[in-house]
Amino acid sequence: MSWLQEAAAVAALTFDVDAEAPILAQGGHYADHLTTMSHQSYGPDVGVPRILDLLDDLAVPATFFVPGWVAEQRPGLAATIVERGHEVAHHSYSHRAPTSLTAAEERADFERALAVFEAQDIPVSGHRAALWEASPQTPALVAEHGLLYDSSLMGDDRPYLLSTGGVVELPVHWSLDDWEQYAYLPTPHVGSVIESPRKVLELWKAELDGMRHYHCLFMLCLHPFLSGRPGRLLAVRELIEYAQRCGDVTFARCRDLAVRASEDTALPVRPVSVPVVDPAVYN
Amino acid sequence: MSWLQEAAAVAALTFDVDAEAPILAQGGHYADHLTTMSHQSYGPDVGVPRILDLLDDLAVPATFFVPGWVAEQRPGLAATIVERGHEVAHHSYSHRAPTSLTAAEERADFERALAVFEAQDIPVSGHRAALWEASPQTPALVAEHGLLYDSSLMGDDRPYLLSTGGVVELPVHWSLDDWEQYAYLPTPHVGSVIESPRKVLELWKAELDGMRHYHCLFMLCLHPFLSGRPGRLLAVRELIEYAQRCGDVTFARCRDLAVRASEDTALPVRPVSVPVVDPAVYN
Amino acid sequence: MSWLQEAAAVAALTFDVDAEAPILAQGGHYADHLTTMSHQSYGPDVGVPRILDLLDDLAVPATFFVPGWVAEQRPGLAATIVERGHEVAHHSYSHRAPTSLTAAEERADFERALAVFEAQDIPVSGHRAALWEASPQTPALVAEHGLLYDSSLMGDDRPYLLSTGGVVELPVHWSLDDWEQYAYLPTPHVGSVIESPRKVLELWKAELDGMRHYHCLFMLCLHPFLSGRPGRLLAVRELIEYAQRCGDVTFARCRDLAVRASEDTALPVRPVSVPVVDPAVYN
Amino acid sequence: MSWLQEAAAVAALTFDVDAEAPILAQGGHYADHLTTMSHQSYGPDVGVPRILDLLDDLAVPATFFVPGWVAEQRPGLAATIVERGHEVAHHSYSHRAPTSLTAAEERADFERALAVFEAQDIPVSGHRAALWEASPQTPALVAEHGLLYDSSLMGDDRPYLLSTGGVVELPVHWSLDDWEQYAYLPTPHVGSVIESPRKVLELWKAELDGMRHYHCLFMLCLHPFLSGRPGRLLAVRELIEYAQRCGDVTFARCRDLAVRASEDTALPVRPVSVPVVDPAVYN
Repeated sequence: MSWLQEAAAVAALTFDVDAEAPILAQGGHYADHLTTMSHQSYGPDVGVPRILDLLDDLAVPATFFVPGWVAEQRPGLAATIVERGHEVAHHSYSHRAPTSLTAAEERADFERALAVFEAQDIPVSGHRAALWEASPQTPALVAEHGLLYDSSLMGDDRPYLLSTGGVVELPVHWSLDDWEQYAYLPTPHVGSVIESPRKVLELWKAELDGMRHYHCLFMLCLHPFLSGRPGRLLAVRELIEYAQRCGDVTFARCRDLAVRASEDTALPVRPVSVPVVDPAVYN
Repeated sequence: MSWLQEAAAVAALTFDVDAEAPILAQGGHYADHLTTMSHQSYGPDVGVPRILDLLDDLAVPATFFVPGWVAEQRPGLAATIVERGHEVAHHSYSHRAPTSLTAAEERADFERALAVFEAQDIPVSGHRAALWEASPQTPALVAEHGLLYDSSLMGDDRPYLLSTGGVVELPVHWSLDDWEQYAYLPTPHVGSVIESPRKVLELWKAELDGMRHYHCLFMLCLHPFLSGRPGRLLAVRELIEYAQRCGDVTFARCRDLAVRASEDTALPVRPVSVPVVDPAVYN
Repeated sequence: MSWLQEAAAVAALTFDVDAEAPILAQGGHYADHLTTMSHQSYGPDVGVPRILDLLDDLAVPATFFVPGWVAEQRPGLAATIVERGHEVAHHSYSHRAPTSLTAAEERADFERALAVFEAQDIPVSGHRAALWEASPQTPALVAEHGLLYDSSLMGDDRPYLLSTGGVVELPVHWSLDDWEQYAYLPTPHVGSVIESPRKVLELWKAELDGMRHYHCLFMLCLHPFLSGRPGRLLAVRELIEYAQRCGDVTFARCRDLAVRASEDTALPVRPVSVPVVDPAVYN
Repeated sequence: MSWLQEAAAVAALTFDVDAEAPILAQGGHYADHLTTMSHQSYGPDVGVPRILDLLDDLAVPATFFVPGWVAEQRPGLAATIVERGHEVAHHSYSHRAPTSLTAAEERADFERALAVFEAQDIPVSGHRAALWEASPQTPALVAEHGLLYDSSLMGDDRPYLLSTGGVVELPVHWSLDDWEQYAYLPTPHVGSVIESPRKVLELWKAELDGMRHYHCLFMLCLHPFLSGRPGRLLAVRELIEYAQRCGDVTFARCRDLAVRASEDTALPVRPVSVPVVDPAVYN
């Protein structure tokens, strides 16, 4: 049974509810930048409720990747998302890039997030690395803690099996992320030009059409503090309605997709390995 | 009574008349960069008169945020704006970011701007932080000096009450600012690509439509040295005419909007507080 | 008599024939970057002949700003431009920004360029500062050496008189420069995204229309190594043909325009002065 | 006989199969950035097979520039490309910029790549410098090793002869490269905004039309990890189909084009030389 079932492409709507975490990860002193903090808190405070209503309206399921620190700061947040019928998944504790941590620090951060969700009684089946910066040990952490899937790598545009512990990879890509299109902050410096929702809709429809042609996983990554804004959210609505009108696109939570993929015996296996580098060439 | 009254959305046209201040705030030696200084002086010298005529033509009121230093350098500027029926508001003295100042420096700068406007007999009811970089004490300064509103935060896209001293927040956002679309300078380095007015109009119409849908405050922030240029100002005209044709958008000065919002008993209250950060996680 | 004569707007087509100079000004060692040097030499070698043919075809006059070093390296270049009926003007000797030089260095560079053109028997009537980075003494140098006009400042979008020595300013602006739209080099790092000629044409037509509305000087600045490329040059052709079809736009060499402007008694005068800065505020 | 034969323009489709090399060239420690490595391995693993199928479908020949290190890491890759009827060409061993190497290092890297292809029995006739950063000795290396052509310079948009050893230059340009349009990585930092395939198609069609007008070589440079993605590859298909519909564009492998150009007695000769720089001016 193919992970695609009868569809030409599957769309996974995912929301990274990062709130203040990615900014604080660049420096704890940013906590005193009041405007920047308000820019980030808009995500869970204004964006998430609006997004939940939109998903209700269109009757599509979604997955919310929530850093443990954010779930801790806003105790009801993860529970509300689950109650509304969506999946909450692991997105590190602090949103610091694994590639910037020691192996012990990455492990501690990973497990601290699991503890937060356990304390809040939120079932968690998958992981996405902060900043999409997985380290060589990240897949092993995912496997060791019994999670079904990872969603941090870019080795394909269809689900694949990692050679480590049977973990399903649900790959992401920068072009299906709203960050590169919309994020702008002067301090810490983020982004350059702010794109129009029309352009972003055009980009994502082009990619969805390409993925229908090549039978791929349309893994959309949205940030509530970015795509929760009015004009952008109407563009997200238009994108979902377009996919629904196509008739050959189905929507799935990452957890359900991972289960389906793990039962697909034709799924490609890709090694978790990094190039061995000659320091005389690459130092 | 809702701050929206009968409208689907309210548009506040605001102009930050920064002139040379934001450049000098990056280094006093830029005073000797003759081209850059002329690029900035275009704002009050050419842009503002053209903008005042446009507002007359279309019969819409606006708010001009003027740094005290700019008002001092050009003695008649603030008075002219008021005489033409618009509001002048507080935009710091020097346009240095509060987050880059000590608390005492921020206070001194804040009060020096008030003194300039008092000396020029210009009534001031609201404040916008330089660079939209409010510090944790900024709302308290606004309240202490009896101003009605602040317009520097991004915690919502509708007016809200700050937990500090009953100050109304009229929130801004990077996507409704012309700086990210148009500003370009090689030294000091500002901006990347210069966008077409068509793209900017498309972006702002999309946001206005989204805000009509979600009943928000369309807080547009324009800089006379940027949007005062011919092609861009025609696009601003087109945007205003579009909003007028919509039939469900009203225009308001920030001061009037703040009064209306302060009388709206359903206005949400948001805390002025910053995250408490564990230095072991975020250092 | 107005500088506009009967026109709604005047278009000055100017070409900055910078060749390798702006790159070498960032470091003489770039002379050994063979690809980068070839990228720059394309300007005079391939772009200029193509541009001269286009101007012939459309029967429009233009002004070419040539650094003295470039004229020296390619002995026939300036003469060819003049023979084809266009103006050659002063664009520094070395294309180093005046704001990065001492007063003595700027003077020496300025005079060395004049000497090159004198030796080549090329009449020169106007000046444009390298990188549009005029210093406070630049207008005085222009006046002292008997040039009619400067074209480096941005204090208006119509010609104006500088308070220094009766020099006419023919102002430029970043939005009418092809550099911000097209220039890209990895080393030295220049530019970000490369824009489509469609977008650039849209931007410039919008500005031209705005300038017809407000009666301005459409001062277009093109670089042969950028706009001399095939697709971009077709867009320049389309822009010129659009302006010709408008019926209310005339084309002029900068020299002729400066003469006309100097005879316009209604021309505004703007001071050549820089803000006096309090080092306690702006340091 | 003209290199163009009967065509208005010739299109050379080239693919730089860089895989992990350009990232490792910025620091060997990036081998441990698992997501970034997967982002790059997508090129040969997913992009190349899809591109080969597309070329089959449309019956157009292409040239693949493969760093020696990449060919070594993936033993069957170069052979597969040749078996499918395309050309494999030299793209350095390690993808380090020649301008960042000593002359001895550049030579060693150049020869190591030749040895890899010799060991794999892959015939190689041309060279493209890594990062398009040829050094003054690069053309001599190309000539010394008996290669027919170089494709790293930008001194024209039509083939030309280098004054060094009869090497044909098939020039490239940043505007016909997918890197500036699509490449984005946070660490190492690459790119800014990610463009829509619609915009890129518009840009390349405009350039192709310009090149048909001016009779040029449309040298398109694509990276499988970028343009191999679904929506972008459909845009490449659309571009090729557009060129085919034009009726006056032919497609050629670089090798065939170089042979044809070397037989064109009217081909311009351009010197391989760099400006002699006065250190008192450019230091």
